[in-house]
Amino acid sequence: MINYTIGVDFGTLSGRAIMVDVKTGTEIASGEYHYPHAVMERELPSGKRLGHDWALQHPKDYLEVLYDVIPKLIKTSGVAPEEIIGIGIDFTSCTMLPVKDDGTPICFIEEFQDNPHAYVKLWKHHAAQDKANRINETAQRMQESWLYNYGGKISSEWAFPKLWQVLEEAPEIYEAMDHWVEAADWIVWQLCGKQTRNSCAAGYKALYSKRTGYPSPNFFAALDERLRDVIKDKFSCPISSLGQKAGGLTQAMADKLGLSPGIAVAVGNVDAHVCVPAVGITQESKMLAIIGTSTCHMLLDQQEIQVPGICGVVEDGILPGLAGYEAGQSCVGDHFAWLVKNCVPDHYINEAERQGISVHEYLTQLAAELKPGQSGLLALDFWNGNRSVLVDADLTGMMLGMTLQTTVHEMYRALIEATAYGTRMIVENFREHGLTVNEFIASGGISQKNPLAMQIYADVLNMPVRVATASQGPALGSAMFAAVAAGSQKGGYDSIHQAVAAMAIADNLVYEPKQAAAQVYELLFLEYRRLHDYFGRGENDVMKRLKHIKLSKQLTVSRM
Amino acid sequence: MINYTIGVDFGTLSGRAIMVDVKTGTEIASGEYHYPHAVMERELPSGKRLGHDWALQHPKDYLEVLYDVIPKLIKTSGVAPEEIIGIGIDFTSCTMLPVKDDGTPICFIEEFQDNPHAYVKLWKHHAAQDKANRINETAQRMQESWLYNYGGKISSEWAFPKLWQVLEEAPEIYEAMDHWVEAADWIVWQLCGKQTRNSCAAGYKALYSKRTGYPSPNFFAALDERLRDVIKDKFSCPISSLGQKAGGLTQAMADKLGLSPGIAVAVGNVDAHVCVPAVGITQESKMLAIIGTSTCHMLLDQQEIQVPGICGVVEDGILPGLAGYEAGQSCVGDHFAWLVKNCVPDHYINEAERQGISVHEYLTQLAAELKPGQSGLLALDFWNGNRSVLVDADLTGMMLGMTLQTTVHEMYRALIEATAYGTRMIVENFREHGLTVNEFIASGGISQKNPLAMQIYADVLNMPVRVATASQGPALGSAMFAAVAAGSQKGGYDSIHQAVAAMAIADNLVYEPKQAAAQVYELLFLEYRRLHDYFGRGENDVMKRLKHIKLSKQLTVSRM
Repeated sequence: MINYTIGVDFGTLSGRAIMVDVKTGTEIASGEYHYPHAVMERELPSGKRLGHDWALQHPKDYLEVLYDVIPKLIKTSGVAPEEIIGIGIDFTSCTMLPVKDDGTPICFIEEFQDNPHAYVKLWKHHAAQDKANRINETAQRMQESWLYNYGGKISSEWAFPKLWQVLEEAPEIYEAMDHWVEAADWIVWQLCGKQTRNSCAAGYKALYSKRTGYPSPNFFAALDERLRDVIKDKFSCPISSLGQKAGGLTQAMADKLGLSPGIAVAVGNVDAHVCVPAVGITQESKMLAIIGTSTCHMLLDQQEIQVPGICGVVEDGILPGLAGYEAGQSCVGDHFAWLVKNCVPDHYINEAERQGISVHEYLTQLAAELKPGQSGLLALDFWNGNRSVLVDADLTGMMLGMTLQTTVHEMYRALIEATAYGTRMIVENFREHGLTVNEFIASGGISQKNPLAMQIYADVLNMPVRVATASQGPALGSAMFAAVAAGSQKGGYDSIHQAVAAMAIADNLVYEPKQAAAQVYELLFLEYRRLHDYFGRGENDVMKRLKHIKLSKQLTVSRM
Repeated sequence: MINYTIGVDFGTLSGRAIMVDVKTGTEIASGEYHYPHAVMERELPSGKRLGHDWALQHPKDYLEVLYDVIPKLIKTSGVAPEEIIGIGIDFTSCTMLPVKDDGTPICFIEEFQDNPHAYVKLWKHHAAQDKANRINETAQRMQESWLYNYGGKISSEWAFPKLWQVLEEAPEIYEAMDHWVEAADWIVWQLCGKQTRNSCAAGYKALYSKRTGYPSPNFFAALDERLRDVIKDKFSCPISSLGQKAGGLTQAMADKLGLSPGIAVAVGNVDAHVCVPAVGITQESKMLAIIGTSTCHMLLDQQEIQVPGICGVVEDGILPGLAGYEAGQSCVGDHFAWLVKNCVPDHYINEAERQGISVHEYLTQLAAELKPGQSGLLALDFWNGNRSVLVDADLTGMMLGMTLQTTVHEMYRALIEATAYGTRMIVENFREHGLTVNEFIASGGISQKNPLAMQIYADVLNMPVRVATASQGPALGSAMFAAVAAGSQKGGYDSIHQAVAAMAIADNLVYEPKQAAAQVYELLFLEYRRLHDYFGRGENDVMKRLKHIKLSKQLTVSRM
């Protein structure tokens, strides 16, 4: 008998599901469902206006993904329900919602339907920056050691800044909720009828550490006396490690989805992190970079070390039994898109059209004709601040080396190179703090679409870059964890290592570093590093001062 | 009786002449003649190929300007020849030619007609850079004090690098010439039959100082033993101060031009420097900036001080009795042109077309909507190196402060601002060395075409910027010197001060600094200055290292 599992990846605008053969990882069927409410940034369904930097979602949409896609998967695959042994899910994070003890979202309760704080706060809800700032200042003042698990600074996107915003702006919602949960954990709860929190989101976004737990009541009280018992009050559920079975599928849900009741529901996961096993990584020294509009870097290690400038280190955060490290670049594909949108003259666009390729492809083609160092340009990839290793949203872009002969395709290549140098800073930062990185696996849109970029990354990192060619990395990872949750007795696996050996993506494209290019990039990277530190580590805070002047109210108009 | 003088301005591609009323400076007639040979950069008329960076002219073309334009001026004005009391000329510089004792250009002699070194080396002939480097190194080693009259470095455009190139590459031409003369001085010689060298070109381009003369034979011998007696051999003619009469117009020339024989021919001048009296400057503290593709700054003072980073200080160099200072920015309008050529998307171009204005005008219009500091951008205006005050051709451009919202019209404004900061560096450099600058007069193309730029200059300098609105500044200055050469007895003036009082351009547009804008620019200038020094004074030579890598032969191709 062949066994199958289902993996569901809940993204920003849609949920995508795949069904895979547990023996091989081969995809049998896939489907996608777009959230009817998409992202609510301006108003609620009722028309109620939202503030600046808000981003909400409706939890009903997530259930509809399951109800729509899973029956279709079964139908199109022709697989018998009893052959499907488990289901796993992953989600954007930190994406939080307030719920009652029975799992009912607060926004499902009529009296709260017009209250924005009753809804899901999506990862990119950025209206709690002031709370994040106060948490960082307080933690630094109180010398909270957990702060250094997060490179010294937490993000406004995370669980506690968002919850504190609810408390301050809508205390009635804070009062009404019994739990403040990740959407991933809420969906798992809906599937198996039991609440559990996954160690990945808890560790990376809710300041939880396997050894020391959550921050102390005294710390929370220092923020706001009403938060003293926030863990007891709103986070009372235990943490489960990735790959564990959260429970069996409920009869009601089985009926709705067309699956067998009791099959394994895996503990939830975060979309980026679940890609690590999907591309075949189960041990230290191999970095996965998901390179898209921004880049997320993940690395495993036996040791848990506090590395400055990373997003987080979490025990069991990516795979059970290992410390999982996360770092990030806040702007990668976005850099290239900025240049194409703002600085590309017509003759490039016409020629791209004539060749039947995109402007990105045409610029890449011209950029590929250049040798490393030939443009004389060097950029700092700070157009959207710097996440790792500087953790500073107020930094801005820089380019130098321009002459009267400089062209926009030279600038395009300089931006690609800058993001490669930024990645190397992250790699070297890990190495300098005692971790090993000797393989680099790339995934995400840019890795698929831009071979020149990948060759430049290989040359700049002076490491082979393996590109994982599968398009559904997160959903595959979830399907693998579903197989582990099912266990070998049910036709799955007893460890994620076994699942990876059988199911992970095997077809990789490899970019080998070219030594002559790597030598030039070695010199250029030293220049990048020096300017990165000069502008980014306080020697010359001109970028921040310019931003301060830009945002100051006293600006006056200098018209003719 | 009304008296008139003629001023002729010999430019790079044409000669322009005007006839003015000596009482008022009012222009009565004007004319222009394009050099038939224009600039010879690729080959001689014979087809003989020229080397890289060469730029030659044919002296016959200069005479044709006189023969063509002056009779036409007389004809169109209806002025009687006896009412015309003098003629003055100015020229691009350093523009040199080899001639015989009787004034015959070597290229007029048949046996040398196919030798490129027999022709005029135009100011922008840049093929003697190695000679300039060796002169600079040698002067520094021998601690030649004159070097510091030129900010510590001389240019490959000047008289001796060009002459040394002749000696090395065509010793037979060096041998054949009796004089190595500025084209300005050669034209004056043709007009009055007597050779004289003007103190402006001699001082700024031929290392001549009124007090110490030329560099010593020992210095020249240290360059090349054959140059030991170069001054005695090729520069034997005395120096005349500006405003002096070089001689009376010869009968032969009077016949050809339709003028009266014996009228005053003024000592020649350099085109930029002759604008100083034309815009009404006769004393210290008023800076004239001629702002075009590049900018030339001129300033007078009682004291002669060695100011680092300037192009030169010359006693009697601009006006008799005063020290004339020159500084420069190597790239101003060229910056804006670079951006328009390389980085402007179609929708700007379409909208400019729809409004019936140039892309420059449209970008200026959008840039004018921005407040100082609003873009958050800061640039260093080094796209073509930095002339003053860093005297470094190897510096390159820099821009910082970019975000994902940055637009090209914000970049356009940042480039305008950068050139204004560069000008302020020059002003402050003069002040720091004891000179006074408290008025700023702008002339040249940008000053006429871009009111926003002039307002930004006023705000950045925190000084009123007066724009001289006349289009023929140099020719007017030459006509004024012609009136002085004629003297009051002949209906002219006895000093340039009198001529300025009567004839200078009076209709100026004034841009007053706006205090609120000036306050913001005060902060931004401090940021500019710090980065200018950081990248330009050796703290971080990254621009030079990148250029070195760019030019290195070892670059390898990094194709996909």
